[in-house]
Amino acid sequence: MTTQHLIDQIKTKKSFLTVGLDVDLNKIPKHLLDLEDPIFEFNKAIIDATHDLCVAYKPNIAFFEAYGIKGWMALQKTMHYLHTTYPEIFTIADAKRGDIGNTSTMYAKAFFEDLEFDSVTVAPYMGKDSVEPFLAFENKHTIMLALTSNEGAFDFQTIKVDGKELYKRVLETAKTWKNSQNLMYVVGATKAEYFTEIRKIVPDSFLLVPGVGAQGGSLSEVCKYGMNAQIGLLINSSRGIIYASNGVDFASRARQEALKMQQEMAQIMALHLIK
Amino acid sequence: MTTQHLIDQIKTKKSFLTVGLDVDLNKIPKHLLDLEDPIFEFNKAIIDATHDLCVAYKPNIAFFEAYGIKGWMALQKTMHYLHTTYPEIFTIADAKRGDIGNTSTMYAKAFFEDLEFDSVTVAPYMGKDSVEPFLAFENKHTIMLALTSNEGAFDFQTIKVDGKELYKRVLETAKTWKNSQNLMYVVGATKAEYFTEIRKIVPDSFLLVPGVGAQGGSLSEVCKYGMNAQIGLLINSSRGIIYASNGVDFASRARQEALKMQQEMAQIMALHLIK
Repeated sequence: MTTQHLIDQIKTKKSFLTVGLDVDLNKIPKHLLDLEDPIFEFNKAIIDATHDLCVAYKPNIAFFEAYGIKGWMALQKTMHYLHTTYPEIFTIADAKRGDIGNTSTMYAKAFFEDLEFDSVTVAPYMGKDSVEPFLAFENKHTIMLALTSNEGAFDFQTIKVDGKELYKRVLETAKTWKNSQNLMYVVGATKAEYFTEIRKIVPDSFLLVPGVGAQGGSLSEVCKYGMNAQIGLLINSSRGIIYASNGVDFASRARQEALKMQQEMAQIMALHLIK
Repeated sequence: MTTQHLIDQIKTKKSFLTVGLDVDLNKIPKHLLDLEDPIFEFNKAIIDATHDLCVAYKPNIAFFEAYGIKGWMALQKTMHYLHTTYPEIFTIADAKRGDIGNTSTMYAKAFFEDLEFDSVTVAPYMGKDSVEPFLAFENKHTIMLALTSNEGAFDFQTIKVDGKELYKRVLETAKTWKNSQNLMYVVGATKAEYFTEIRKIVPDSFLLVPGVGAQGGSLSEVCKYGMNAQIGLLINSSRGIIYASNGVDFASRARQEALKMQQEMAQIMALHLIK
């Protein structure tokens, strides 16, 4: 999917919401557990209930791998359902991959070709030749960790390198890589005040923003400092939406939560005169 | 597996060789492609031919994921074969994972519980709460990237933070984490001169060392600077062993290459009076 296609979808839906699919069999409604594929059935119900309010789904790959073959099959079925039923949706494999060149190529093939994701998250620690293999895929997007929403972000990401935080060095360096136009970045909502600095380095890139809601980040603060003329933000919510209820009403309650966020986003877009 | 069990195996076999299983269907012998599960058959043949010369196998998870369900099934079968046939072998999931806490727990379950790996490789960028969930598993080992063997290692790992390279900061910080006794570290063989400095920070930890052979690192140099009284090294070779031949003799040629390395290791152990 091209970036323009994503932007068009955002403007049509008046939403830049991403719904994270972190399916934990201990948390989903009990009545689904009797079905043949509870993980897929849960995803399908969430997707059917929210697809018009969000622009992207982000399956969290760990939550599928933890269930082995069954999990991987549920992931395939979820992707197939998205492609055939809602082909306009942007898909994010939240996988945080990254390895030496030929191995990164294999990961890229797994997510971009086999599962047909539009994008995948990657980690920067191994540098240029661990990320460029992902960037080589046309109309696919590589979402690199910059500043994450967890406490551990302060262990290494914010330490000073030549007087400047490591995450800034990561952003500046990544911009010089081949096909860097295919890069997006993960920036946690819990650090809204950092967005001003980040926008100085990557004014035009899309940022995938976890941490709104359950982790305490504020949507309006993130937009205030992080939004650009093309929106440039994908705001993720996982648990706050998909686990709004664990009863038989889980899908409609998920829709309610997604609707609240979409409405807030539509207001923000109107306020910023983005049409 | 306990660390002592690994050390005992090293002393018995006079080897600290790890064989990396990076199975690429474009590289394995053509005659295997007619079998029902070529990936597993290739692994089984390599394992049968080399198990007495090495102490660990390291499936490279990307190479399984790239083949989807079939790949994941081949991985399960390979692990089952190792557990039932050669239970003394140490197993490494080369996965380079790392995410926020609850997601890391799911990855840990996938590799430590579902697939019963003894260890998994992780990336440090997200810090303490992305790695500690792995460390909580008893008699399981978490092998964190410190200084990798690729060119991109110089992008971030060796830049100076308060006058000291980032990878040293990573090692020093990780030592303070809960259950850090379950940590091992990845240090590339291509940077043998760095081992002296690394051993000052983590004198007792095991180091997983890629980059000997195909990537140009020298076994004797690595041992000279990196070995400790309990060996403390796991030297990985992937392509140099498993793709020694792509003919019908691939397994016996793999054995020849593994034997060369084991013999060199036995000599080094004798020289260092390690029995």
